[in-house]
Amino acid sequence: MSYNMFGRALRFMTWGESHGPAIGAIVDGCPPGLELSESDIQPWLDRRRPGASRFTTQRREPDQVRILSGLFEGRTTGTPISLAIDNVDQRSKDYGEIAAAYRPGHADYAYDAKYGLRDWRGGGRSSARETASRVAAGAVARLIVPEVTIRAYVVEIGGDAIDRSAFDDSAIEANPFFCPDPAAAERWEKLIDDVRKAGSSVGAVVECVATGVPPGWGAPVYAKLDSELAAACMSINAVKGVEIGDGFAAARARGEDNADPMRAGPAFLANHAGGIAGGISTGQPVVVRVAFKPTSSILTPVPTIDRTGAETEISTKGRHDPCVGIRGAPVVEAMMAFVLADQKLLHRAQCG
Amino acid sequence: MSYNMFGRALRFMTWGESHGPAIGAIVDGCPPGLELSESDIQPWLDRRRPGASRFTTQRREPDQVRILSGLFEGRTTGTPISLAIDNVDQRSKDYGEIAAAYRPGHADYAYDAKYGLRDWRGGGRSSARETASRVAAGAVARLIVPEVTIRAYVVEIGGDAIDRSAFDDSAIEANPFFCPDPAAAERWEKLIDDVRKAGSSVGAVVECVATGVPPGWGAPVYAKLDSELAAACMSINAVKGVEIGDGFAAARARGEDNADPMRAGPAFLANHAGGIAGGISTGQPVVVRVAFKPTSSILTPVPTIDRTGAETEISTKGRHDPCVGIRGAPVVEAMMAFVLADQKLLHRAQCG
Amino acid sequence: MSYNMFGRALRFMTWGESHGPAIGAIVDGCPPGLELSESDIQPWLDRRRPGASRFTTQRREPDQVRILSGLFEGRTTGTPISLAIDNVDQRSKDYGEIAAAYRPGHADYAYDAKYGLRDWRGGGRSSARETASRVAAGAVARLIVPEVTIRAYVVEIGGDAIDRSAFDDSAIEANPFFCPDPAAAERWEKLIDDVRKAGSSVGAVVECVATGVPPGWGAPVYAKLDSELAAACMSINAVKGVEIGDGFAAARARGEDNADPMRAGPAFLANHAGGIAGGISTGQPVVVRVAFKPTSSILTPVPTIDRTGAETEISTKGRHDPCVGIRGAPVVEAMMAFVLADQKLLHRAQCG
Amino acid sequence: MSYNMFGRALRFMTWGESHGPAIGAIVDGCPPGLELSESDIQPWLDRRRPGASRFTTQRREPDQVRILSGLFEGRTTGTPISLAIDNVDQRSKDYGEIAAAYRPGHADYAYDAKYGLRDWRGGGRSSARETASRVAAGAVARLIVPEVTIRAYVVEIGGDAIDRSAFDDSAIEANPFFCPDPAAAERWEKLIDDVRKAGSSVGAVVECVATGVPPGWGAPVYAKLDSELAAACMSINAVKGVEIGDGFAAARARGEDNADPMRAGPAFLANHAGGIAGGISTGQPVVVRVAFKPTSSILTPVPTIDRTGAETEISTKGRHDPCVGIRGAPVVEAMMAFVLADQKLLHRAQCG
Repeated sequence: MSYNMFGRALRFMTWGESHGPAIGAIVDGCPPGLELSESDIQPWLDRRRPGASRFTTQRREPDQVRILSGLFEGRTTGTPISLAIDNVDQRSKDYGEIAAAYRPGHADYAYDAKYGLRDWRGGGRSSARETASRVAAGAVARLIVPEVTIRAYVVEIGGDAIDRSAFDDSAIEANPFFCPDPAAAERWEKLIDDVRKAGSSVGAVVECVATGVPPGWGAPVYAKLDSELAAACMSINAVKGVEIGDGFAAARARGEDNADPMRAGPAFLANHAGGIAGGISTGQPVVVRVAFKPTSSILTPVPTIDRTGAETEISTKGRHDPCVGIRGAPVVEAMMAFVLADQKLLHRAQCG
Repeated sequence: MSYNMFGRALRFMTWGESHGPAIGAIVDGCPPGLELSESDIQPWLDRRRPGASRFTTQRREPDQVRILSGLFEGRTTGTPISLAIDNVDQRSKDYGEIAAAYRPGHADYAYDAKYGLRDWRGGGRSSARETASRVAAGAVARLIVPEVTIRAYVVEIGGDAIDRSAFDDSAIEANPFFCPDPAAAERWEKLIDDVRKAGSSVGAVVECVATGVPPGWGAPVYAKLDSELAAACMSINAVKGVEIGDGFAAARARGEDNADPMRAGPAFLANHAGGIAGGISTGQPVVVRVAFKPTSSILTPVPTIDRTGAETEISTKGRHDPCVGIRGAPVVEAMMAFVLADQKLLHRAQCG
Repeated sequence: MSYNMFGRALRFMTWGESHGPAIGAIVDGCPPGLELSESDIQPWLDRRRPGASRFTTQRREPDQVRILSGLFEGRTTGTPISLAIDNVDQRSKDYGEIAAAYRPGHADYAYDAKYGLRDWRGGGRSSARETASRVAAGAVARLIVPEVTIRAYVVEIGGDAIDRSAFDDSAIEANPFFCPDPAAAERWEKLIDDVRKAGSSVGAVVECVATGVPPGWGAPVYAKLDSELAAACMSINAVKGVEIGDGFAAARARGEDNADPMRAGPAFLANHAGGIAGGISTGQPVVVRVAFKPTSSILTPVPTIDRTGAETEISTKGRHDPCVGIRGAPVVEAMMAFVLADQKLLHRAQCG
Repeated sequence: MSYNMFGRALRFMTWGESHGPAIGAIVDGCPPGLELSESDIQPWLDRRRPGASRFTTQRREPDQVRILSGLFEGRTTGTPISLAIDNVDQRSKDYGEIAAAYRPGHADYAYDAKYGLRDWRGGGRSSARETASRVAAGAVARLIVPEVTIRAYVVEIGGDAIDRSAFDDSAIEANPFFCPDPAAAERWEKLIDDVRKAGSSVGAVVECVATGVPPGWGAPVYAKLDSELAAACMSINAVKGVEIGDGFAAARARGEDNADPMRAGPAFLANHAGGIAGGISTGQPVVVRVAFKPTSSILTPVPTIDRTGAETEISTKGRHDPCVGIRGAPVVEAMMAFVLADQKLLHRAQCG
């Protein structure tokens, strides 16, 4: 069974393949009366758009979103919001080779093993192009949580991390890497240029912080706020790890060092927990960190097999991102927005 | 809204508080005709049972499971399986202090912020005692995936990691730490003794590997196998991070180094992906790694506030685990078993 | 796949078989802070209890409910509420014959066809005994909708209908048939006595009215209030039809005769719609009518087959209700309460 | 919260308003490898299409469906199938009056009460136009259950029922009423002409029979096959009642008369149960009957209120169906197909 929907009280279902006529999403459960137009969505899509700099894939997609339902006189009606984005710049012939052979690290073999067939054009449904639908749905979700500010940025590329002491909020949108440390951004420019020229790829770590989340969102035990965030982020293409707050570093700490003492306010003297305790928000910033692997699309030939099981090798010549984690930042933001909006509605349902 | 259920085709819903009369779970959607009795569940509960060694909480719970429904003449009937475990060794008075003040790092404040009241006795619903219900449900799930072997072990405590070259499968059950490296187990014994005597606590990393998973389980996009595992593991008490395969290390790698080349068989020459590509199993071992924070229950007084908002401090005198990650290993195993059983049934639904 | 759960924002999952040790339910998603004890549930169970008069099955079950979780100091905590009812008066040997042969009209053959085995003792999971769990869960739901008054009564037994002009609200609890027309109750007493002595059975129609439902509960298109009520009622054992408002009579009417004109207030001059338009409550009384078939448990031998497929015949000698519709009234009430409580929470989630 | 999705293992989510640019649906969970093109869907849409005869609404919609995703080389891939149908013949100005005043019997008042605003153009989301999306989704579902034959027909209009002894399968598509009794079809022609000329409307009863359903589909207790069918049918616009098998007539019968005796085969000597026992299919034809009310769109002025609460009256001048039940037949068929396909997949998940 395939699942193409995310969310509980607020839900979105996405559809579409990399080289089909279009992609899109339906957002269901949106509260009525919110002002919404394409201009509320387009800027977020533009941030994620391919081809915006030489550091991302050279596929040129305008990613113009159309709202097909759920609006009346500029406001949401509470009925499903259908969002569509046309595919414009498909070049399926670039991908001819992958019709026959499996790209190791890609979904090619797993899809064939599951379904017995696959749309190999540009990766079909497994393409990162699907994340545009998430960004569009996330833009709607943002309207539901205006009290929350969400910011994602890249903290590490290929093992080269930012200097936390140089963190500059205003730098994030000033370079093509969503990098809050201008010096790191300069280093990364050279790094990605090298990687791109070598036909290689490199991984990255994205961090996302949501401020303004009131205490009490989330749930005990199974739809915990952190559990939902983990599911949301791990569902993004190329993601292999998710941390909340101190994450794996907390596993190396003593209880005394990991404590978040409280003072009147309530205020917290630390935020090792990343704003979540027992699955429920504490009122501190919600912090998630996400590991993106290097894309498996590289020029170096890799041993593989073809659909008949015979051994061969493959190198990827199609257009692709040398570092998918960069464009992952707007996607992580969108998923954070969606999870928080969903949890806000769920909290309201049970606790009024 | 609270969610106390996990799973899609196969589901379990748990109930119960640390100091209530009992805890339990219903498993719904189990295939019919499977041989099942209490003796299929009890050994797994015994592995997780508190009080089994001096390295875990001293609460003494026999954790005897009773099956109340869903069986006929020793086989599952396809109807819901109700599992109950009596609570025996509650000592609510140990916890009197936490009725009034919030333990930083615990769910106390968040629960009050959400619900306006909480069962403070032993942590109520937020107690790790709930994980016994998961282990019981996971034991049923194991019967649905007899082709799969699942093994979890602790690879790191307080920053002290095992030596991978000394990995000995048979050592795992031979020490109280589920540790595959006998030398590390010896070091950890001293470490935990020190931590316990100091009234402190320490974090740990659990790794879980499932072998025998055929290619094709999982789903593209949202209920991906890795996404489901991330949700399952992040929902366990004290977990702050989840990795699949190389996880965060992949974010530091080049594409060439992260490739899993394929040979006829099909066989793979590496498993950086942790057995999952595009959200679907590849037939390689499924590998997940989980970070447990040090429990916040420590003797050192920590600044906090009480229910009126006034400042105070608190130290935890109740019985607790100096390293919750140790008993986390059987819980991670149970969640792995449940996710795989669920995905097996989901795959069968769509792909026959 | 079996589904033993009902509801969306508010959910209950039931478990248990007719002749197992106990039956029960978990209610998940209940708002916190509601006063609740066994005494809020027991009276509703007593109304449904078997053996209360000679017009129902002679099985004697005290149906004492125990609350095992989700309460603290007499109030709901927002965590799952586990409800258990012991089975006391099983006589499995009465049912020996049905182990081998299928009772036409019962679930025996269908269960075997689906699952390959079944718990034949007293009908196992398909027994109407499961409805006690619904009544218990419905009693919790009532606390969530204190603004609503729900009343179910029997309007027809064996084709003998009440006189609507003689409708007396106070009569409903004054006879063993939940009959609002005292004269009909007298006729039914003789009718059921005759049916019972003849070892036969007879059908009935139950009507349920909820007053105090505000306008706006429900949803367009798929989880409509009427659609949810239809699912809820059709899931009750022996139910074969559900109507909202005028129901099938509306199919015979002209538009002019079926109109519910509105006046200031807002007030309605009629209620052909049964309080629901476009799937959403209008503020008028919500009216549902439910058809119960005669139970298939009759003394007259009926041709059937055994598990080997060989022809035989069967007559039912076990204890049973001559008219299951009578005890259906409290069950319909419970399902109405649960659907309305769920819709109240769902409405709050989306519309605040 | 609004729900615009139906189904469990197989799901569809619909979107769109009567006078928006388009309507559509996503079908998620479809098995891979099924041959599918627009030509598999279009004939079913054409049967439901408005403006096909003078007995339906005069709105002219070509209802051309486009498949936007989920196909590769003419076969389903297991990924979501996005279906879109453009709206062509909107005349919003016809509906100007209903912007201000509520049409009794329509969803106008309930939507405003729920959402605080509504898209009044042609009824917006509450328009029967949404059912085109259902018919498209149902056409996909049919491919999943090729072993099943589904046929819906009208058995009664305005209280004038067909003669069952004159039932002629081949007549159903030979008249504009889906009527299996040619003599009744002639009477209805005159009846609908009269109703239409009078600016009135009339109700109808649709029956739907599925043959070829194997025993074992469905579930005990809550997602029963009959419960799912009831939910599916009651969610169709204007439906006020649902019966399975003998339905309300069973409530008037004795147990002896309602029995479905079994013989070797297995074969049944009757089908009072409508092919479902204990929520599970028996292998007999599945029979559902659905009551459609007369549409509330009539020329006769009806007292009502406007959005300010002031009293007024309204008559509907827009294009509409004099008998919505007629075009309901293809919609009931689609919902039957979808429920059966879903249950087939669910059965396969649990029982292999």
